[in-house]
Amino acid sequence: MPFFDHINGGPVVPEALSAMAPWLASAANPQVPHAAGRRAHMALEAARAQVAALIGARPEEVVFGATGTEVNNLAVKGYLKANVRKGRHVLLSAVEHPSVERACRRMAADGWRPEAVTVDTHGRAVPDAFEKALTDETALVCLQLANPEVGTVQPVAEVAALARSKGAAVLVDAVFAAGHLGLDVAALGADLVTLSGPGIWGPAGAAALYVRRGVRVQPEIDGGVEEAGRRGGQVNVAAVVGMGAAAERLTKGRPAHLGHLEVLARDLRARVAALPGVRLTGAPPEPAPGQAPGRAAGHVSFLVPGADGESFLELLDRAGVAASSGSFCGAKAMKASPVLTAMGYAPEDALAGVVLSLGPQNTAAEVDQCARALRECIERVRGVLKGGPRPG
Amino acid sequence: MPFFDHINGGPVVPEALSAMAPWLASAANPQVPHAAGRRAHMALEAARAQVAALIGARPEEVVFGATGTEVNNLAVKGYLKANVRKGRHVLLSAVEHPSVERACRRMAADGWRPEAVTVDTHGRAVPDAFEKALTDETALVCLQLANPEVGTVQPVAEVAALARSKGAAVLVDAVFAAGHLGLDVAALGADLVTLSGPGIWGPAGAAALYVRRGVRVQPEIDGGVEEAGRRGGQVNVAAVVGMGAAAERLTKGRPAHLGHLEVLARDLRARVAALPGVRLTGAPPEPAPGQAPGRAAGHVSFLVPGADGESFLELLDRAGVAASSGSFCGAKAMKASPVLTAMGYAPEDALAGVVLSLGPQNTAAEVDQCARALRECIERVRGVLKGGPRPG
Repeated sequence: MPFFDHINGGPVVPEALSAMAPWLASAANPQVPHAAGRRAHMALEAARAQVAALIGARPEEVVFGATGTEVNNLAVKGYLKANVRKGRHVLLSAVEHPSVERACRRMAADGWRPEAVTVDTHGRAVPDAFEKALTDETALVCLQLANPEVGTVQPVAEVAALARSKGAAVLVDAVFAAGHLGLDVAALGADLVTLSGPGIWGPAGAAALYVRRGVRVQPEIDGGVEEAGRRGGQVNVAAVVGMGAAAERLTKGRPAHLGHLEVLARDLRARVAALPGVRLTGAPPEPAPGQAPGRAAGHVSFLVPGADGESFLELLDRAGVAASSGSFCGAKAMKASPVLTAMGYAPEDALAGVVLSLGPQNTAAEVDQCARALRECIERVRGVLKGGPRPG
Repeated sequence: MPFFDHINGGPVVPEALSAMAPWLASAANPQVPHAAGRRAHMALEAARAQVAALIGARPEEVVFGATGTEVNNLAVKGYLKANVRKGRHVLLSAVEHPSVERACRRMAADGWRPEAVTVDTHGRAVPDAFEKALTDETALVCLQLANPEVGTVQPVAEVAALARSKGAAVLVDAVFAAGHLGLDVAALGADLVTLSGPGIWGPAGAAALYVRRGVRVQPEIDGGVEEAGRRGGQVNVAAVVGMGAAAERLTKGRPAHLGHLEVLARDLRARVAALPGVRLTGAPPEPAPGQAPGRAAGHVSFLVPGADGESFLELLDRAGVAASSGSFCGAKAMKASPVLTAMGYAPEDALAGVVLSLGPQNTAAEVDQCARALRECIERVRGVLKGGPRPG
C-alpha cells in the first residue's frame, strides 16, 4: 500500500533497524558505572557524533530527547527561561509547528510576548517583516527550515542574520525538513536546531536539540545529570542508536536520497497539477534565478476546492493511499488549517488541504498507484459536489 | 554475568520484546486517520488498558510519556500549575527520587514552597511528621511507594489519608517499586502515580502517569492533542506496546514473580549479612506483627564501612557482578548519598552504600556467584583498609 504520509512518521530505514536490534533486549542505562552501563554510554556517544555530523555540529552540542515536540519545547522554553535578561519578546513565523507555537503561547502566561510574523501566499516568511518586528528586547526568533504542510523552504539564513544583528537567538525547527533538505547549522546561523528520529527516516522515541556552544538552556525535565544536565531521564539507547544510524545514512547518501525524493515528487506533482480543479499549494519547486530551492524534496501539497479534507483522506485511504492534511500533532479532528489560513486561503479552502510526503522507500510504481487513486477520488468528490450520488 | 542493577534498567522480559517486534519497522503515528494510523491507535489503547489494569485504574486515567523522570516532572509541575488556587505548599519525603525532588525545587523558583519531611533510620517516612507539616495551603504531598536505594516500603496509604483530610493531592512515585510490590491506586489513596517501562521489566522509552479521574494536570510538553491534551508529542508505539505487555505479564503473574524475587533476595541478604563488617541498610524484610512488608521484594542494600562505594562497584564489576549504589539519575560521580544522609548516616558511611536489585531473570546460581564475588571484594577492601597492597 503506497505510504505518502512520512511527515507524520513512517517506515524506518533498514540501517537504523539493524543498529537498534542489539539494544532492544535490555533497557540499558548509560549513566551506570558497570560493564553494561559503559557499553550503553559508548553507543549513546557514538550516536551523538553521528547526529552532530549530519548537521555540522560538535557532539557536545547535541542533546537527546524523545520527540520533536519535546525538543521544540525545550528549545523555546528552556532558552527563554535561561536568558530572561535579554528580554521577553519572541518572534515566530505564523506557520510554525504547534509544538513551537504552543510553547511560545505557554510562555505568554509567564510574561513573555510572542508575536507571530505573517507569511506570503506560499507560506514563506518575509525577512522584511521579521526585520520590522525585531526589537532590542527580542530574545528568540523561531523559524522552521521548511513547512511540513506546504513544503515551502524558509529564508532561515537571511532571517537569522537579521536576528543576530539585534542580539536575538535563532531556533530552527528542522524536525520535518532535515530528511528533505541539506542542513548545516553554521550556514543557517542557528543557535538552536531541532530534529527527530522519524524526521530523518529513523525510529520514534528519539529526537535531538542542537544547542550552539555557549548558548544556555534550562532543562524542562529536571532529574539527573543526563545530557550534560539539560534533559533529565534515562535516554532510550535503542531509539537514539537508531537515530544515529539514520543520521549517518543520510549524511553519506544525501545527494542520491534527495534526488530520489525529488524525481518521484516531480512526477507526482505534475500528475496532481493535471487533475481537474486541484490547486497546488506552497512554493513552486523551481527556484527563481539565484535562489535556493523553493520546496523541500519529496513533498507535494494541494487543495481539492470544495472538498472536506478529512473525508478526502478517508477516500484515499480506502483506495489504498496513506496521505495527510498536515501535521496531526495539532488536532485529531480536521479544522481549517492554521497554515493555509495564515497564507491567505479562505476558510473553505483551508479545510481542503492534502499533503503527500515521500520517503526513501517509495517507488515510481507507488507514485503511479497514488496518482491513479487520486484521480479516482477526485472524480468521486467532483461527482458529489455536482450533486451526484454520495460516495459510499 | 550476574546482573543485579535492575533499579537502573535491565533486561526486558520476552513478552515485551515479542509485543514490540511488529512496531519497530515503522514510526507509526496513532493520531493520523489512515489505516496505519488506526492500527497504531488501537495498539496504543490496548497498551493503555494493560497498564491501567496493573494498577487498578481506568484506561483514560493513564497518560503515556517517555521516562519515569518525565512523568514525575509532569506530575509535580503539571499538577501544581493546574491547581494554583489550592496553595503553594508542597510536602515531599527527604528520600524522594531526584526527578521528584528537583521538580519540586524548580517550582520553588516560581513561588511554591517545597518542604522535605525527615525519615527514620530505615529511610521510612514518619506519618506523624507529615501530619505536623500539612497545612491548609498544602497542594501536593509526594511520597514514593518504596525507596530504590534502601528498599524501604513507605506508609503511603497512611500519609495519603492525612493528606486527603487536608485537601492535598498525593503523588506516589512507583517508578522503582511497581516491579517489586503490589500496587492498587485506590488502596493507596493516590491522585497521581508514576510508572516506567524498565521499572516493570519492560523497555526504555515508555512511562506512564496515572491521573485520577477529575484531577487536572497542565501539560509540560505543549503540542497537539495527544494523550488527551496532557502530553504533546508522538507516542513511541513500540515502547508503549512493550510496556503494556510487561504490565500484563506482571498483572497475571505477580505472586509468583514477587515470590521468586524474594526467595533469591532472602538468600542474598543472609549471605551479605554474614560478610565481615558489612551493615544492611533500610527496613528489615520481616514485617512487624500486623504490619505490611518492610522492604520491596528483590532488593538488598548495605554499607561497606570505610570503603568508597564507587571503587567498590568497580571491583564488583571486574568480578563480574553489575551492582549500583542507588539511582544514577542523580549523579554520575559518587557523592555522599542524600538518601543515606537523610537516614542519619555519617558522611563516610553515606559514601559506602551498595544496592543489589534483582529481576525476574536472575537465578539462584547468579545469587551464589554474586555472594562469592562480594566476599572476595570485601576481603580485598578489608586488606586495603588494613594497609595491605592496593587491589590492581
